[in-house]
Amino acid sequence: MKVILMKQMIEEINSHLEILLNKPKDGAVKEAMKYSVMAGGKRLRPVLLLSALKAYGYPYQEYLDVACAIEMIHTYSLIHDDLPAMDNDDLRRGRPTCHKQFDEATAILAGDGLLNEAMNVIMQSSIEDHLKVQLASLLFKSSGASGMIYGQQQDMYYENHQASLKELEDIHHYKTGCLIAAPLEMAGIVVGKEQEALRTLGFHLGLAFQIQDDILDVTSDSATLGKTAGSDIENGKSTYVSLLGLEKSREYANELFKQCLEDIYGMTCNHGIMIDLLEKVIKRVN
Amino acid sequence: MKVILMKQMIEEINSHLEILLNKPKDGAVKEAMKYSVMAGGKRLRPVLLLSALKAYGYPYQEYLDVACAIEMIHTYSLIHDDLPAMDNDDLRRGRPTCHKQFDEATAILAGDGLLNEAMNVIMQSSIEDHLKVQLASLLFKSSGASGMIYGQQQDMYYENHQASLKELEDIHHYKTGCLIAAPLEMAGIVVGKEQEALRTLGFHLGLAFQIQDDILDVTSDSATLGKTAGSDIENGKSTYVSLLGLEKSREYANELFKQCLEDIYGMTCNHGIMIDLLEKVIKRVN
Repeated sequence: MKVILMKQMIEEINSHLEILLNKPKDGAVKEAMKYSVMAGGKRLRPVLLLSALKAYGYPYQEYLDVACAIEMIHTYSLIHDDLPAMDNDDLRRGRPTCHKQFDEATAILAGDGLLNEAMNVIMQSSIEDHLKVQLASLLFKSSGASGMIYGQQQDMYYENHQASLKELEDIHHYKTGCLIAAPLEMAGIVVGKEQEALRTLGFHLGLAFQIQDDILDVTSDSATLGKTAGSDIENGKSTYVSLLGLEKSREYANELFKQCLEDIYGMTCNHGIMIDLLEKVIKRVN
Repeated sequence: MKVILMKQMIEEINSHLEILLNKPKDGAVKEAMKYSVMAGGKRLRPVLLLSALKAYGYPYQEYLDVACAIEMIHTYSLIHDDLPAMDNDDLRRGRPTCHKQFDEATAILAGDGLLNEAMNVIMQSSIEDHLKVQLASLLFKSSGASGMIYGQQQDMYYENHQASLKELEDIHHYKTGCLIAAPLEMAGIVVGKEQEALRTLGFHLGLAFQIQDDILDVTSDSATLGKTAGSDIENGKSTYVSLLGLEKSREYANELFKQCLEDIYGMTCNHGIMIDLLEKVIKRVN
């Protein structure tokens, strides 16, 4: 029953993204925006928001706009991170990266367009003004120069410098954690409770997610991942696997998943829905 | 007296930008954001908002956050437009462009950071929520995938295709016009009147501004412009000068400035302040 709920949510997110991305004026940038967003990601971040709302008994469909805005921000960050000047990746979500399919200029503008339109989607949503402001404040703080963008800067810096475990955790707190914690904390704002606990869960989940990413980079293949396997080593990146080894990384991820479970049991929401979310992450292969 | 007002406004804008840009977490991206914003532009767009508010007798200082957000968006667009994959410019505001001073990755992130933080600045401003939403809606519609970003796409497309005069006007309506009309129209939202007339004035002014740009590109030098003179010809761009010739371009710009004057006389605000604004644009050398 609950698997059906999540599948349904993802379908609703995808349909709504399709509608939102048909709105801009026609041209290469619009095509590139659609290409990258509709490539079929896991939709983890919007599902986190909608599932948490559902777990507190809230009508989650009212927040589809906001959920899609989060996915648009996530996708813009992937497009820009994949650029030749950044990680220089050719493969993403099982397809050529945006700048490979189109060109660099179009990919830069498509990323800019997605970030910009994410703001428009929230501002033009039908929720109340005070909620638009509170949710956008948290979201753009999480994705901004003291959040995800800062994390990307640190990630690049440590390509040429050896990172300690503490520094690595700091990179990922910002680069991955902020935009995984944000949707959960945003649900807390909407329901008006447990915002801090949801945020804590989000950062535990974000870190576990990132360690999984590092593990998958060395244990999986490009076809399964939908992006180039082994690219961390190629880019000389410090990862949990390079610092802790594969076995200890797995132990650490499992420890964090257990922590997430404890976090969930401490909340007043429907635990089943939240545990399903957690399992979706634990079982992921890409 | 009025020149003093505008000078004072620019100083207030610069001081406030300095405060806002010191907020993000330290690092190369923050330095690059500051470097590009504090390079000393004309601050035309924020001055348009504040002057129009003043012309309607509104306490303009309350909107300094919003004004600075517009300048941050303008600067992000310059940073990304200057990138090697776009216009590949080395000089901007009399200094090396952002990617020349730092590196491409940092410049991409600095642009992303400015766009993102522009949203945060408005969301965290002290104006009322309904105004934040209305002003941000208009601003990010103007800068987005159906506004300025669309214009940049069209501009690039016509580097390899001959544009007609009508197509050129369309490019500049979006690429330059939208972000010059937006601050005037935003003033109309705040004061609750003449929004449409302010928008019309904005697009007339924006087009005149762009024709001036095309003229300056061939008649001025890099030292005066603060950016590379003659770059339009080098990039194979269609311009008003290449389509109409220098003399007819000057006539067209003058015609538009006269139209702006008529627009202003049709409004109920303090005409003197608005005419000063117009003169600031007419007399510009960069």
